[in-house]
Amino acid sequence: MNETGLSEEQIRNVLNDSKGQDLKYGRVLSSMCTYPHEIAVEAHMQFIESNMGDFGLFRGTYNLENEILGSLGDLLHHSEASGYMTTGGTESNIQAIRSMRNIFQRKDKCHRPNLVVPDSAHFSFDKVSDILDIELRKASLDKDLKVSIESVMSLIDENTIGLVAIAGSTEFGQVDQIDVLSDIAIKNNIFLHVDAAFGGFVLPFLEDSQEFDFSLPGVTSIAIDPHKMGLSTIPAGVLLFRSPDQLESLKADTPYLTVSTQYTLTGTRSGAAVAATWAVMNRLGKEGYRKVVSDCMSTTHYLLDRLAEIGVYPLIEPVMNVVALEIPEADLVRSRLAKEFNWQVSITQNPHGLRLVIMPHVTIEMLDSFVQDLKKVLDTL
Amino acid sequence: MNETGLSEEQIRNVLNDSKGQDLKYGRVLSSMCTYPHEIAVEAHMQFIESNMGDFGLFRGTYNLENEILGSLGDLLHHSEASGYMTTGGTESNIQAIRSMRNIFQRKDKCHRPNLVVPDSAHFSFDKVSDILDIELRKASLDKDLKVSIESVMSLIDENTIGLVAIAGSTEFGQVDQIDVLSDIAIKNNIFLHVDAAFGGFVLPFLEDSQEFDFSLPGVTSIAIDPHKMGLSTIPAGVLLFRSPDQLESLKADTPYLTVSTQYTLTGTRSGAAVAATWAVMNRLGKEGYRKVVSDCMSTTHYLLDRLAEIGVYPLIEPVMNVVALEIPEADLVRSRLAKEFNWQVSITQNPHGLRLVIMPHVTIEMLDSFVQDLKKVLDTL
Repeated sequence: MNETGLSEEQIRNVLNDSKGQDLKYGRVLSSMCTYPHEIAVEAHMQFIESNMGDFGLFRGTYNLENEILGSLGDLLHHSEASGYMTTGGTESNIQAIRSMRNIFQRKDKCHRPNLVVPDSAHFSFDKVSDILDIELRKASLDKDLKVSIESVMSLIDENTIGLVAIAGSTEFGQVDQIDVLSDIAIKNNIFLHVDAAFGGFVLPFLEDSQEFDFSLPGVTSIAIDPHKMGLSTIPAGVLLFRSPDQLESLKADTPYLTVSTQYTLTGTRSGAAVAATWAVMNRLGKEGYRKVVSDCMSTTHYLLDRLAEIGVYPLIEPVMNVVALEIPEADLVRSRLAKEFNWQVSITQNPHGLRLVIMPHVTIEMLDSFVQDLKKVLDTL
Repeated sequence: MNETGLSEEQIRNVLNDSKGQDLKYGRVLSSMCTYPHEIAVEAHMQFIESNMGDFGLFRGTYNLENEILGSLGDLLHHSEASGYMTTGGTESNIQAIRSMRNIFQRKDKCHRPNLVVPDSAHFSFDKVSDILDIELRKASLDKDLKVSIESVMSLIDENTIGLVAIAGSTEFGQVDQIDVLSDIAIKNNIFLHVDAAFGGFVLPFLEDSQEFDFSLPGVTSIAIDPHKMGLSTIPAGVLLFRSPDQLESLKADTPYLTVSTQYTLTGTRSGAAVAATWAVMNRLGKEGYRKVVSDCMSTTHYLLDRLAEIGVYPLIEPVMNVVALEIPEADLVRSRLAKEFNWQVSITQNPHGLRLVIMPHVTIEMLDSFVQDLKKVLDTL
């Protein structure tokens, strides 16, 4: 920041340069985000100054948020769900587990509460563990890369505050056996949080879906991100609780605002992303999301057919538009794809593989070109 | 969300209705947010899809973030400060205290660490206490509504991980004696976090300022919010640490991204607000912010002159553009101002008063009208 400001033209020149250094999504096969829908961008702009941290000033935006929560409650089979719009999956996960911890009565103050999560859980749960001072117990995966039920059961003890299930794992797009985990949670009288940050806008719109939401009686909270497959703008996450008591356990008094309490992690909060989310959800409707998901799945299957032709196969049959490939020297292949062809893909840890997310920006033409480039790399390993 | 989506026209009609229900800032005297600068809005739009949660994909935006951190480090007298752009003051405060807690070696696992904060600290510190499981010790205020040094000293013990000082308290706009607190922090070998979420973009641009930043050797972290007096878009906060070790204590591994570690509370993170912040900071320059602050202070003094004419006086001489007024039956006055005249003001708790924030959207004309309406309410109490 200089003493004297730059001209508008100088500002625009720097911004254009910077924008040019950002990758276009046209070479990105590694991200769970994509271009937001244009109606979302338009709404975001219209509500740019709206602050949901003080929603008494922004009643119109606040009503839109409530409509979103109602719609997603309906979609996830619990129209009475309580919650709020977060900054994304990480905040949703932190707040869901904080609520468990706050409600759980610790018998012994010198022992830490623990949380049983699948080994495939998103790295945000490592943050959760550090922030909330909770022991993270990672359950191993079975051969389908779902969490092993035996492993989960073996990790539960009297300090376990809850379980986490994944509906669309970041690495594999796999969905745990949430019906079984629901029964286990009920039997042990503990909470069950479903991380559907990615899968929440996929599973309800698949032709052959599976139960993962509040229709399962043991599920007590769900994270679902409009800014991923919901095609909204950043930052747009949603956290829903089965019972208002859970939300209530996050209450903070807010003396200087137009409203007297706040349940959110952040204070000032984007109303623009709320309006954007309302706009895209209502523009597309369920039919629109079904089309988005169906297109992504067709593209995913097209990719698998092309990959089979060059002898490359997935680690598991994809459940959604996330593909993990069995590939020799995956790290080297990844870095060569980036360096030589400017493709952004990522890596799965265990089992080790090459990971692709087939978001709506991914086209058949992109994949034709990608498969050719992948073949060149594999042929010269 | 219906089965079939709405038309663009239907979407726009609802958005326009909702926007109409949001208050305009033209009647708002209670908020620390305001209209963002138009160049910030323009940059926000251009970078709408940028995700700083995976900044390897968005190197251009990432460079802008680094420039912002460098500029604010310079402004706050420590060009080598480490940090990142947060969602706002609450995240900055949580992360600053989390870092203290993570570095502090707990002698006795069964005793909670504690944090000494001024009684005037923002309510986000109540969230900090709950989230991080830290005892909050609230030090009383002196007659100037700065934290009492004696009270702070009496609260420090062997489990104290640090102190918080406020540079621009939410209720009174007061600045603590941070030079004295800096000495106390050094003597006790504990951290000192300065919450300058509001004052950080005010104090450096005042004619008569005071030391509150890294120029004081005991200050170890600072929260400063571009989306308040920095005139950027939401969500734009900044957290700066004196030493890289402090930031390092927040590290999480990020296996599936283009970058291998993350220090932020959230995962996906708005690159749009980064570009917006860069744009407005560089458009205005120090000269521009000096003008913004000078205008707000002139307007503040104009208000005080007008209020004196009707026999209303501030609880303390305003240090910045936050005014707390000594008024009988403040709660009733507040609610009548809202109901009868649509003015949004707020309340201070202790001492009880009527609180106004004179943001850049507040004009002389607004205040003329406000003082008239306030007089009508006071005359008919």
